[in-house]
Amino acid sequence: MTPVDHAQLALHLEVASTPKPGNVDRHREYDDLRFEHFLAGAVGARPGLRLAAGNDGGDPDSIPGLGDAFERGVRGMSQQDGDNTQFGCLLLLVPLVRAATTDRLSQSGVTSVTAATTVDDAAGFYRAFEYVDVAVDDPPPEADALDVRRGGDAVPTLRERGLTLADVMALSADRDGNASEWTTGFERTFRAADRVLADDGPITDRLARVFLDCLAERPDTLVAIEHGEERARAVSRRAADVQGDLDAAADLADAFHEEGINPGTTADLVAATAFVALEWGVRV
Amino acid sequence: MTPVDHAQLALHLEVASTPKPGNVDRHREYDDLRFEHFLAGAVGARPGLRLAAGNDGGDPDSIPGLGDAFERGVRGMSQQDGDNTQFGCLLLLVPLVRAATTDRLSQSGVTSVTAATTVDDAAGFYRAFEYVDVAVDDPPPEADALDVRRGGDAVPTLRERGLTLADVMALSADRDGNASEWTTGFERTFRAADRVLADDGPITDRLARVFLDCLAERPDTLVAIEHGEERARAVSRRAADVQGDLDAAADLADAFHEEGINPGTTADLVAATAFVALEWGVRV
Repeated sequence: MTPVDHAQLALHLEVASTPKPGNVDRHREYDDLRFEHFLAGAVGARPGLRLAAGNDGGDPDSIPGLGDAFERGVRGMSQQDGDNTQFGCLLLLVPLVRAATTDRLSQSGVTSVTAATTVDDAAGFYRAFEYVDVAVDDPPPEADALDVRRGGDAVPTLRERGLTLADVMALSADRDGNASEWTTGFERTFRAADRVLADDGPITDRLARVFLDCLAERPDTLVAIEHGEERARAVSRRAADVQGDLDAAADLADAFHEEGINPGTTADLVAATAFVALEWGVRV
Repeated sequence: MTPVDHAQLALHLEVASTPKPGNVDRHREYDDLRFEHFLAGAVGARPGLRLAAGNDGGDPDSIPGLGDAFERGVRGMSQQDGDNTQFGCLLLLVPLVRAATTDRLSQSGVTSVTAATTVDDAAGFYRAFEYVDVAVDDPPPEADALDVRRGGDAVPTLRERGLTLADVMALSADRDGNASEWTTGFERTFRAADRVLADDGPITDRLARVFLDCLAERPDTLVAIEHGEERARAVSRRAADVQGDLDAAADLADAFHEEGINPGTTADLVAATAFVALEWGVRV
């Protein structure tokens, strides 16, 4: 399988892995956000993943930008009725796929990839917000012109200030777990993939366990946005309490579902982790 | 989405739809044949589906043969640890994808596609059996040289007798539900897709109901091969008894799982049905 295949499969495996308390998985869904929306999102995202792999189907000397790849992925992902299914996953997968296709799937390799992003890439990232409704925090007042909810309208400001996609990620790294991966060479992703390799059993069980580990080790930033930081810390403590036991996690999944707790940033991390683990040879 | 995307998504939706009594679905699996094997099979099959769509990534004037497309699909599908996940699905999808990409997704259109198959296509079909273990019936003694389990070794006999893939399908149409679709212009597939369009609710529920309908209306040929025709008729009667009620079907799924009853040919039909329904505009 190619890195594009592995990235697509990673999206499928993320949503198939169960229980991942608070997230849609193959045993839990909402009326307006169903399991099959994620399946269609993963298939639809593929043209964006191909661009991330450097393949635009045309001129082999023209390497597509990561921002265009991300925008294309989000556009394709959004062709189902569940709205935003995998925006954050794609934000992590796009640079990882680029790193993998250029033989640099490592912390330093993906750091080179993100460091090479441009203002055009930042523009693609902003335009991607026009396709789906993404839960984000209000920016600080001085950064209002860069509110991602402005979509493409923020592009003149990006150009004026010369902000690359890496710069944009750095601006929100303290309050968004995905942006934080961009600024740390995907430190948590690679560490989680190590744990998946060291674990045994079906890959979907390993991913469910690594989800619990990741949620326990750091509060989920989507939960913090939606419910506040204190609640996010409590959610992590409850994830820690199940101690990786998937039966206990199933009870926690029922509770989070009931409470409307959705640790979606941690699910994004699991998709990225699945990709790295597949590239490293974990079997399905 | 392209026909290739729809075909791939159809494979995902087939296995996600639940309950489909006796088959792996998102709530039921076996230790050695797990849900994620089907996800990986669907992603792996994609290069074969692209060939079916007439796209070999190279010379636009050279249209790949359906047998090569099928063989490539099965080879890619088999790169996971569950062995045969979607052999029968691909046998149905390959001509349907070809029909869709040439604006002939209709009974007469796909009949033209199958009628145009060649001896080379038959050779590709036989070679595909070398990648996975497919449950088949013993052929009649006079057809022993054409036993599919011979794989590529049967190719000289195919050439000697000038048998096309359509001819090969016709030879087993009376005992294999998939071959029967090939010889009837996919009559059951299109009829089932009509029912999916007329139904409402989430597509996975519609596909679960159409599975029950199809199983009730005709005995599953894989069940007949594995357990005999009388048992296959009884299985259909039990499917009819649930009268399309998905809660009752869940109990039947538990029972069939326990009894080792696997109506796999009917699941293949559902994957083909999902493809046609997606092409006809059913939303996910």
